[in-house]
Amino acid sequence: MPVTLKDVAELAGVSRSAVSRTFTEGASVSDKTRRKVEKAASALGYQPNALASSLTTGRTKLIGLVANNFHNPLFLQVFDLFTRGLQERGLRPLLVNLTEDIDPANSVRLLKQYSVDGVIVASSTLSPEFALAFRNARMPVVHSFGRYAHTPRVHVVGIDNAECGRMAARTLIARGYRRIAFLGGPETASSTQDRITGFLDAAVAHPDVTVTHSFASAYSFDAGRVEMTKLLMTDPAEAYFCGDDIIAIGAQTAIQSAGLRVPDDIGLIGLNDMEMTRWENIDLTTIHQPIPQIISSSIELVTSMLSDAERVPETRLFPCHVVERGSLRPLPTP
Amino acid sequence: MPVTLKDVAELAGVSRSAVSRTFTEGASVSDKTRRKVEKAASALGYQPNALASSLTTGRTKLIGLVANNFHNPLFLQVFDLFTRGLQERGLRPLLVNLTEDIDPANSVRLLKQYSVDGVIVASSTLSPEFALAFRNARMPVVHSFGRYAHTPRVHVVGIDNAECGRMAARTLIARGYRRIAFLGGPETASSTQDRITGFLDAAVAHPDVTVTHSFASAYSFDAGRVEMTKLLMTDPAEAYFCGDDIIAIGAQTAIQSAGLRVPDDIGLIGLNDMEMTRWENIDLTTIHQPIPQIISSSIELVTSMLSDAERVPETRLFPCHVVERGSLRPLPTP
Repeated sequence: MPVTLKDVAELAGVSRSAVSRTFTEGASVSDKTRRKVEKAASALGYQPNALASSLTTGRTKLIGLVANNFHNPLFLQVFDLFTRGLQERGLRPLLVNLTEDIDPANSVRLLKQYSVDGVIVASSTLSPEFALAFRNARMPVVHSFGRYAHTPRVHVVGIDNAECGRMAARTLIARGYRRIAFLGGPETASSTQDRITGFLDAAVAHPDVTVTHSFASAYSFDAGRVEMTKLLMTDPAEAYFCGDDIIAIGAQTAIQSAGLRVPDDIGLIGLNDMEMTRWENIDLTTIHQPIPQIISSSIELVTSMLSDAERVPETRLFPCHVVERGSLRPLPTP
Repeated sequence: MPVTLKDVAELAGVSRSAVSRTFTEGASVSDKTRRKVEKAASALGYQPNALASSLTTGRTKLIGLVANNFHNPLFLQVFDLFTRGLQERGLRPLLVNLTEDIDPANSVRLLKQYSVDGVIVASSTLSPEFALAFRNARMPVVHSFGRYAHTPRVHVVGIDNAECGRMAARTLIARGYRRIAFLGGPETASSTQDRITGFLDAAVAHPDVTVTHSFASAYSFDAGRVEMTKLLMTDPAEAYFCGDDIIAIGAQTAIQSAGLRVPDDIGLIGLNDMEMTRWENIDLTTIHQPIPQIISSSIELVTSMLSDAERVPETRLFPCHVVERGSLRPLPTP
């Protein structure tokens, strides 16, 4: 049984509050009480405890990190940067894996029970209502990779997904592709809705361009491969804007398995610029999403809310750009 | 400022201990006090708090999950299974990213400060001393993917790495390869030391087989690619047992970039059988490590220590087997 604050209080013959104050920076306690407490703590091998002191400070330094896609290699980088960034500020990530059976109310209840100081929801597929549930429970919350809103109800840090859709369409059209398509992520995801809106929007100015679209069931390799395999059975487009890199890698594999080549037969452009798109056997042209900035900005925001919980929700969007690799035909020479 | 136990105690006019007992299952508190506390808690919107009740129970239901490789896609599966498994038992993972500047003493201090109930060290590169530091601090600890020891000083759950080395050598030799090599992970990692020991051990029975070895600087794609690029500059072996799958994928890319083919020019066998080895453009023959069993067994062990902290350390090893894919030449027909 670990030594608790209660044990120290009993041995020192003081209140638990006195023990707690002794170990809380800046809290008031008489020298006499402090000496009693320190003597008892030392005798019992008691360590000042962040959780015990949280009862006095109202701070636990725990930040809930809620994610719902452990099948996208992108999230390794996301977890790496979040844990490092939080650790550097003396904060700790409490990881919540949003499996099917955990709804917003449950997540709020769980994280409230652990008295996290704040919550970062890291997902491009969860609706704004999810993060809002935390705000409604009066918990500081930031939605990373969330949806742009002119008047956001929670802090959102991410990218302009509609603009990325436009960027993708323009990139394909500039390379001479005339039958282009969107192979999106899950249809209901806000990121999918915004990316297709921008994609169609930019294509409409080109009457000679035909646009089709379909959706993978998840941001995963398998979903991308399955959807492209289906598309290859009829009359595929000349080039696809894929919902993200891992869908593009699945699509690339389906194309190669069908005996076709990328980009000679079909062009692909992804989104994220995750580490493995640089691998020579993948070599994916993609739209770079500045993950490190999004994460450090999310941490900065959630940290600022610890001292200003009523901070007006804001949207922070970071610019994206196309990274040229080998999965699209080259630009025509002028 | 969140409502604390202290606020409730003040409003109810009772001690903090009384508030804490009110919200602790099985704790003793008079009906009168309970009514006062519940009334005050309800008025303030106070929620029973797992951390506050931990002061009475000595349990936080937090489990520290310590990892040191966020660059190996294998760890996505590891994090997914650990978080799910812990959540199913009502436990929460506190994730520690073991960056260079966090030594064992610091990790122990950090996790002790958060009063985690137990610790799972998930790493095949950390020495047994790392997990031992937690045990010496009287914290329940399990080393997942740790090193086999006949008389372990901490609980170890993993595989017999020496046997995997033997299995790899026998697999290569049975396919007629006569110049074989080990392209290991970091040289100091216990997993590397054990895998090379087994590999050399099985090869020694075959005087017509020559064995060489070298080491990648990390279990990462880049490290595997860099090391294989070096090997290709002189006289490469006919087939390589790679330290793990991600090193093998890096090596595969280096081979393809040099205009050579796998397995026609060089054979490869990995270790882990992580998800992406099944991708058609990777198609890696590998040794299957039963990750789900290792993780569920680790969780079971750490959970059992919560009620039996003095449980004698044991080693749990799970059998591995070769998964045949396309990166080795076929077995010769008899």
